[in-house]
Amino acid sequence: MAGTIDRTRYASDNCSVGRTLAVVGERWTFLVLREAFYGQRRFEDIQSTLGVARNVLAARLQTLVEHGLLVRRPYREPGKRERFEYRLTDRGTDLFPALVALMEWGDKHLPDEAGPPVALEHRDCGARLHVELVCEAGHRGDGALGGLTARDATPVPGPGARLRDDATA
Amino acid sequence: MAGTIDRTRYASDNCSVGRTLAVVGERWTFLVLREAFYGQRRFEDIQSTLGVARNVLAARLQTLVEHGLLVRRPYREPGKRERFEYRLTDRGTDLFPALVALMEWGDKHLPDEAGPPVALEHRDCGARLHVELVCEAGHRGDGALGGLTARDATPVPGPGARLRDDATA
Repeated sequence: MAGTIDRTRYASDNCSVGRTLAVVGERWTFLVLREAFYGQRRFEDIQSTLGVARNVLAARLQTLVEHGLLVRRPYREPGKRERFEYRLTDRGTDLFPALVALMEWGDKHLPDEAGPPVALEHRDCGARLHVELVCEAGHRGDGALGGLTARDATPVPGPGARLRDDATA
Repeated sequence: MAGTIDRTRYASDNCSVGRTLAVVGERWTFLVLREAFYGQRRFEDIQSTLGVARNVLAARLQTLVEHGLLVRRPYREPGKRERFEYRLTDRGTDLFPALVALMEWGDKHLPDEAGPPVALEHRDCGARLHVELVCEAGHRGDGALGGLTARDATPVPGPGARLRDDATA
């Protein structure tokens, strides 16, 4: 994107990318979320799918619950003791575009010869879904579906922008 | 999203999310890319902005160069020795929607009181840019600009889907 924020002047420690990654910027965390989007809710199922160590999975689930992306709910199967399942909250569901964007990059740049293992369809019509960068004014770009690219984007200081402590006048 | 892939039957080790995170699924890596999108090219500038340890930054830049997201180019300022700068490749630029999606989640769910520190404008018209999940058939949803949500998405096995070794018939 065209650089119009002087990074030597503005603080970067209040960046929303950094804050988001502080919650989900760990490989297993995003893979746990991936399984949640696939409808996996139970520790044993997620553990079996990911092959992750149980203590690591427990820690990642805990992080996601603490930050409100998953909620932990008790359930009990007949004749068994109470257990817990993990469900996506609205806050967790809002990460879906980021997950799809990561998937689409991998589909394009790190594919198997056979192609992507998963496709996303619009539930209503069966057409493919994609993540696109879109302009509020409705302008079209060169992306797959008329989306824009990084070259069409100009970052500008937002309402929460702060000058760096060492910024010169 | 509506779950229609049985995760107990299909392999997950060929997932494009996992492969992508194996390259960029580390907090500093994404922050280095963020600075590249802001137009920062030089080690000293990126290091000053991020406040990351020099050896960590060197390792992350190396990873991004090895995977073809950045390219390392020599430059020389008058009277100084040759140095290197790092530029985004097309492969790196393609990660922009994922970066914006992470930023938008943070803008919404982890904001300062003052609001987001950065806004993205369409270079041509100045209107805001957003990442949206869009349907190839053009159907609209409830998202900010008519985009769809996770609830509109159905994952289906793609051409590269493989059954798990332990899948039952």
